[in-house]
Amino acid sequence: MKVLALLGSTRENGNSEYLAKRIVEGTDYTLVKLADLHIEPIVDKRHADGGFTTVNDDYEQLVKHMLTHDVFVFATPLYWYGMSGPMKDFFDRWSQYLRDERFNLKEELAKKKAYVVITGGSSAKVKGLPLVQQFQYIFDFVGMEFADYIIGSGVKPGEVKEDTLALAKADQWNTLLSK
Amino acid sequence: MKVLALLGSTRENGNSEYLAKRIVEGTDYTLVKLADLHIEPIVDKRHADGGFTTVNDDYEQLVKHMLTHDVFVFATPLYWYGMSGPMKDFFDRWSQYLRDERFNLKEELAKKKAYVVITGGSSAKVKGLPLVQQFQYIFDFVGMEFADYIIGSGVKPGEVKEDTLALAKADQWNTLLSK
Amino acid sequence: MKVLALLGSTRENGNSEYLAKRIVEGTDYTLVKLADLHIEPIVDKRHADGGFTTVNDDYEQLVKHMLTHDVFVFATPLYWYGMSGPMKDFFDRWSQYLRDERFNLKEELAKKKAYVVITGGSSAKVKGLPLVQQFQYIFDFVGMEFADYIIGSGVKPGEVKEDTLALAKADQWNTLLSK
Amino acid sequence: MKVLALLGSTRENGNSEYLAKRIVEGTDYTLVKLADLHIEPIVDKRHADGGFTTVNDDYEQLVKHMLTHDVFVFATPLYWYGMSGPMKDFFDRWSQYLRDERFNLKEELAKKKAYVVITGGSSAKVKGLPLVQQFQYIFDFVGMEFADYIIGSGVKPGEVKEDTLALAKADQWNTLLSK
Repeated sequence: MKVLALLGSTRENGNSEYLAKRIVEGTDYTLVKLADLHIEPIVDKRHADGGFTTVNDDYEQLVKHMLTHDVFVFATPLYWYGMSGPMKDFFDRWSQYLRDERFNLKEELAKKKAYVVITGGSSAKVKGLPLVQQFQYIFDFVGMEFADYIIGSGVKPGEVKEDTLALAKADQWNTLLSK
Repeated sequence: MKVLALLGSTRENGNSEYLAKRIVEGTDYTLVKLADLHIEPIVDKRHADGGFTTVNDDYEQLVKHMLTHDVFVFATPLYWYGMSGPMKDFFDRWSQYLRDERFNLKEELAKKKAYVVITGGSSAKVKGLPLVQQFQYIFDFVGMEFADYIIGSGVKPGEVKEDTLALAKADQWNTLLSK
Repeated sequence: MKVLALLGSTRENGNSEYLAKRIVEGTDYTLVKLADLHIEPIVDKRHADGGFTTVNDDYEQLVKHMLTHDVFVFATPLYWYGMSGPMKDFFDRWSQYLRDERFNLKEELAKKKAYVVITGGSSAKVKGLPLVQQFQYIFDFVGMEFADYIIGSGVKPGEVKEDTLALAKADQWNTLLSK
Repeated sequence: MKVLALLGSTRENGNSEYLAKRIVEGTDYTLVKLADLHIEPIVDKRHADGGFTTVNDDYEQLVKHMLTHDVFVFATPLYWYGMSGPMKDFFDRWSQYLRDERFNLKEELAKKKAYVVITGGSSAKVKGLPLVQQFQYIFDFVGMEFADYIIGSGVKPGEVKEDTLALAKADQWNTLLSK
């Protein structure tokens, strides 16, 4: 089982990154920090003559990662009650690659399993719920299984280490993903 | 009353743009297509020594627009059950400018009134609801009044012109904003 | 096309009732005020030996109404950010009758179409959204089509008559249901 | 610290009851199974001449319990993606007693702290989220602190005992409430 961890945070060693690393440690994993890549926002050409335009950025390596891993861990801090901008650009570009005939992306995504990690302040456990629902709709669209989610409590770097229940859940997932 | 329409779409003449223009037509407005500007994603430095780093992009003109308008119309297609990536980057960067001592952005935002336009397929009227809730949380955070929202039905360009109830609501808002 | 309007309100001539009547007027309809019937809360015997116990109340006439109508209009005021207690008891008892071999309730419900009317104060257009999502989950469970919903603005009796967009939508539905 | 556990389930020894008992065991608590009481649905008389009519049922003992306890544990199975009918009737009647001049219920509720326990099948961790949001809106209305929630996994009686993370959270709360 190959695990792809996609980090949405835009700072180093934040709380969502900490949980993601704890979840994948010791598994067969690839970890990608989206903010380190050059990812253009979507330019919506779904209804344009000629369709989408080829974009010269780092997205295709992400497509290859998605195709070759079995389980995805999406980890993002709660920024303005949603996923981070870089992670949003990542999903928006699915619209382009689901239509790219070189890949069979939609069919392949339907075979994957998704775990979601969200971190934020104490209000995140309620105010992060629209984001959980959004992830559910995203995964439903492509037929991906939404295995589970964590809403961890942490704003300052390292703070989530005190959220013992978030850690316990991360460790449970780590055990499952290590098999 | 000065109206600022912020467009999140990444195509020309889409459905959310159509509604936004119908809402502001004849009012004292500024219309900005976020995808036409150079807006960097946030680099989260809330807890870094020295705080946020100055970014050389077009964001400050947006700050000035926000400070000098009374009503905001946020118009976005529903991309993957959320606002578009460019609009998300727009909000994420608030985290930087709320801390910028040259401006009094948070206090100023509390005086504004927000209208939200979302467009999408037939499922958007339910699957767009987490986005409405996210907007509510965003506006609550800065104390901005959430006046109302439209979830318009339209995927192909022009389709929303058949959503007579969305048009009726847009026209109502137009009357209110023309005063 | 036979229309069944189920009213959840516990007062006479309230706002949700007004909209429901406006929606069904002139169609081939049956209107039932749930609070006028004797409906016991569910007693959950899904996992009890012998299953559910027969209850002597008015529920079976509701089952018969559901089986013999094509379109349902669920109309409820927003009570504590949810449907009214009597309407909740109505749905809870589905758990009993979906298992009742005299009827084929689940299969029959999958053929129906649902419209939802919610009325409340000005906050209802956002704070009523979890209820819309709940209705979607309910209808998904039985495979019923969720045609559309109205969140009307009205607290004092009659107030919703000033919500012109709610009235316009009600009249649109009325036209559809009159065919 | 006096703890009031209010059970919404309508069966004996179900999963939400199991968690609720585990949470309050050893604390100074009162446990009330709402389905064992006679609680009438609200009859909405907010705008009627003369206001609400006195109802002869068991509700006033619940009012007294609310006034004399500091922390509330609301435990309900997820019935049709909401709280159970008996628990909904419990909240609906707040509308009556918040207006009852013999009590100072709204002011008193603002001093309380609420914990929420929801149990359901594996889909409950997402499809129970509108209910969590509803609880947040309810508590916001009266100014009650929403301390935390558990969405436990369990349908057949006893099943939740295998949800080790739900048990861990219940035990954490028990420690907090035992002080």
